[in-house]
Amino acid sequence: MQHNLQDTVALLARTPAALDALLRGLPETWTLQNEGEKTWSAFDIVGHLIHGERTDWMPRARMILQFGESKAFEPFDRWAQERESQGKSLAQLLDEFARLRSENLNELRALNLKPEDLARRGQHPALGVVTLSQLLATWAAHDLTHLHQISRVMAHQYRDAVGPWSAYLGVLHCASHSA
Amino acid sequence: MQHNLQDTVALLARTPAALDALLRGLPETWTLQNEGEKTWSAFDIVGHLIHGERTDWMPRARMILQFGESKAFEPFDRWAQERESQGKSLAQLLDEFARLRSENLNELRALNLKPEDLARRGQHPALGVVTLSQLLATWAAHDLTHLHQISRVMAHQYRDAVGPWSAYLGVLHCASHSA
Repeated sequence: MQHNLQDTVALLARTPAALDALLRGLPETWTLQNEGEKTWSAFDIVGHLIHGERTDWMPRARMILQFGESKAFEPFDRWAQERESQGKSLAQLLDEFARLRSENLNELRALNLKPEDLARRGQHPALGVVTLSQLLATWAAHDLTHLHQISRVMAHQYRDAVGPWSAYLGVLHCASHSA
Repeated sequence: MQHNLQDTVALLARTPAALDALLRGLPETWTLQNEGEKTWSAFDIVGHLIHGERTDWMPRARMILQFGESKAFEPFDRWAQERESQGKSLAQLLDEFARLRSENLNELRALNLKPEDLARRGQHPALGVVTLSQLLATWAAHDLTHLHQISRVMAHQYRDAVGPWSAYLGVLHCASHSA
């Protein structure tokens, strides 16, 4: 499957509502527990998604369009949500994520990107040359990697409770990590 | 985390709306593609969840309460959705899943299960002795294993589109399988 911008936007537009439906009002035993030291809870992950809306996707898209390969992206702070989510409720974070995502998609649509724009190149501080198309596809796949992570973190809380069924539950055997 | 029936019901009640928000109206490039031969698309997975509502969770709970360990559960048909989803749209499947889940949770709540009920034992055809508590915890973890799988199957469609970012996307490195 090639990158299709309409497909990307369709997915990006749905993620906030999907996380809202899954997480809002859910007992904190599901939403505030993680997988152990230096790992993230569902609450942490929503905070990370918010930080991405503020500093990663559209800011980097603008940098590609303005500076091309001449200026590398700012490195992304993977632990920013530790500060930024402090004192907030999960409901507040879900509202904030939905609002920022909606604003960013409005800005993306207004750019009215053409295939030649999507082919434009930028400079990632670690990965080197990347295209705008790859950046936008990654925005969508990044939502999915964190939906994948949230389901794994939550399932982890029932690791013992499921007893012998753990053998059949693939999510309990997932060793992947979401950056 | 011990098994807590209220937490289990809270999660089970949210899954249909979460899948609805994620999948309804999404382009078929996301929902009908799988990970290769003998693997499932998001459409297939919703069909599998429906089959579980019909034949797995509450029927097995009733069997434990009626027969204890004296009668093994019916084996679960993991490919039933190939027949049962034929000719249906994803929107129809999402409606059907939500309706069946709601009916099953009404039945579960009406049982008004006490701790001594949750400790009752049944016979799994392959796993041997299991408890009602483990069955109900597995129902919730099974939702999560398939949310995990759906996010992985969808991300797979963008494996090439993300370019060098694939190194950072944990979901693209997940080797777990969901039974």
